[in-house]
Amino acid sequence: MRLFLIGFGTVGQSLITLLHQRADDLQARYGFAPSLVGVYTRSQGLLYAPDGLDLAQLQACAAHYAQYEGPHLHDFQPNVDRTLRDGGYDVLIEASATDLQTGQPATDRIERALTSRKHVVTVNKGPIALYYPRLRELAREHGVHLRYEGTVMAGTPSMALALEGLAAARIRGLRGILNGTTNYMLTQMEQESLSYEQALAQAQALGYAEADPTADVDGWDAAGKASILSAALFGVPRSPQAMSVSGIRHLSAADLAEARAQGRRYKLVVRLTPEGGQVQAEALPLSDPLAGVMGGLNAITLETDLLGEVTLIGSGAGGTSTATAILNDLLAIHRAV
Amino acid sequence: MRLFLIGFGTVGQSLITLLHQRADDLQARYGFAPSLVGVYTRSQGLLYAPDGLDLAQLQACAAHYAQYEGPHLHDFQPNVDRTLRDGGYDVLIEASATDLQTGQPATDRIERALTSRKHVVTVNKGPIALYYPRLRELAREHGVHLRYEGTVMAGTPSMALALEGLAAARIRGLRGILNGTTNYMLTQMEQESLSYEQALAQAQALGYAEADPTADVDGWDAAGKASILSAALFGVPRSPQAMSVSGIRHLSAADLAEARAQGRRYKLVVRLTPEGGQVQAEALPLSDPLAGVMGGLNAITLETDLLGEVTLIGSGAGGTSTATAILNDLLAIHRAV
Repeated sequence: MRLFLIGFGTVGQSLITLLHQRADDLQARYGFAPSLVGVYTRSQGLLYAPDGLDLAQLQACAAHYAQYEGPHLHDFQPNVDRTLRDGGYDVLIEASATDLQTGQPATDRIERALTSRKHVVTVNKGPIALYYPRLRELAREHGVHLRYEGTVMAGTPSMALALEGLAAARIRGLRGILNGTTNYMLTQMEQESLSYEQALAQAQALGYAEADPTADVDGWDAAGKASILSAALFGVPRSPQAMSVSGIRHLSAADLAEARAQGRRYKLVVRLTPEGGQVQAEALPLSDPLAGVMGGLNAITLETDLLGEVTLIGSGAGGTSTATAILNDLLAIHRAV
Repeated sequence: MRLFLIGFGTVGQSLITLLHQRADDLQARYGFAPSLVGVYTRSQGLLYAPDGLDLAQLQACAAHYAQYEGPHLHDFQPNVDRTLRDGGYDVLIEASATDLQTGQPATDRIERALTSRKHVVTVNKGPIALYYPRLRELAREHGVHLRYEGTVMAGTPSMALALEGLAAARIRGLRGILNGTTNYMLTQMEQESLSYEQALAQAQALGYAEADPTADVDGWDAAGKASILSAALFGVPRSPQAMSVSGIRHLSAADLAEARAQGRRYKLVVRLTPEGGQVQAEALPLSDPLAGVMGGLNAITLETDLLGEVTLIGSGAGGTSTATAILNDLLAIHRAV
């Protein structure tokens, strides 16, 4: 299996590390021996070697392709479209920065790969949140796989659970904690009596929150994940803008303490059914499984017709976690082809 | 896909109901249109129709094959071994009563099916708890699938999560609540201040506990599931007898109240690593995700190297839930072949 990676930030670099460290393990357990033939980033262009790039070297010179030694092509301004169409690879991995407004340029690239009969694994949310039905249809038409485990709950396999593990059941609705930054902040505000501003500063210092925290604290990141779940689980495309979305800016440590005194705990909760979705801060009773999900963890509770509620709790962010999602998707394709 | 079902108790009958009710849905969503060609039980013998049995009729006469109309063979004392070897079916479904001491006669039947190049789906725990390495090897050798989702946590897809969803990670250990009967009893003892005897009587009245509750309350059912997990996740066969196993008989409502006063809650907890396993009642801190798992629910927390802890909570028993596991396994085989 020859891999072509677009995007070489934290997730891409974690993936290279995983592929390198686990090569023997993946070969021994699954007979899986992928080779990475190409890496493309907007700033550095294309690094390509048809017989596979050296992963150890690549780890060492992630930000400086010019230092890569051994047989390779380095094209600073390549025609990526042509590479995607003609290039000698089997799976496109889309790990470039997401644009939840337009889904571009990733959506065009994914389409080009699918129509060239290449499998696609994306952790880039935009294309799935905005264009999933069209992309799924393209994948079907061309007989290839389109997987996107890492777009929701990072490496915690929420998609594999809902779409494969629970394939026999029908999912009627869900609720979830799908943004780790706000969950970390709410945990700190409650447990350490921090103000919203203090908790945000702490999250930013730890790298959980961006300098501009709007996407996290106003609920838009969670809403983007709700869009993906709506399309993937219910077949209903629904943009974040078409949902009722609010965040946690209005909450104080006093609000959280008051809720606790009443046996409740504030969480930024996504609720979704085929009919609609919302993201808002809710004071959940402590008996709700989601109320016990603390720190940067994420969780999803699926309401099924055959099994009642099924809840999955785990890591929801981070380079290694998201790279694990990519590797799980690659292994799923490996099993199926 | 032609199915042959052994065992026609609660689980088998629930499966027939599901296959019948969901026929259109399974066809529409997955292009999956299985036919049930045979049913065998020890008391009623074999009912067989090469073109498929009528599911509606079968639902109506589960306990009285003689009432089944339409083309079929009814053999009260068939040579099941020959049917398993020669019969026109693709997947054996083993849903007969389990024997955790010997794994028989189910293990022999599963071996016969695998060596005849038939896929196998079993919800019968004995063969997997006792003979998994040999059965897996037989399946590999003959190029067929062996699946057993329903042996642990019924329809909640713990096996699909650990073996497929988390394939890229290594699982270092786990802890879990894997017996719904005792979890229901402990919940009732704590919340309704019932004595052990009252809680047991209630569980028996509701059909959660058998007349002889030993397997549940002394930890052996949970230990059997730990054996399956040890073999499947760690490749280490370990019989229930080789683990440290105790139950909940010694607990009183007062013990539970005292634990609660200290911010703890008693659960019958399975702990398992490649090095060993144990089943015992533990007073978990309320911050442990397992402490919030109430009533008849089951849960498993997998300790992974790449993602930290991943927790799955859901239904752990019942005819429909276990039949859902069978159907999920059939769909996984359908996707793969």
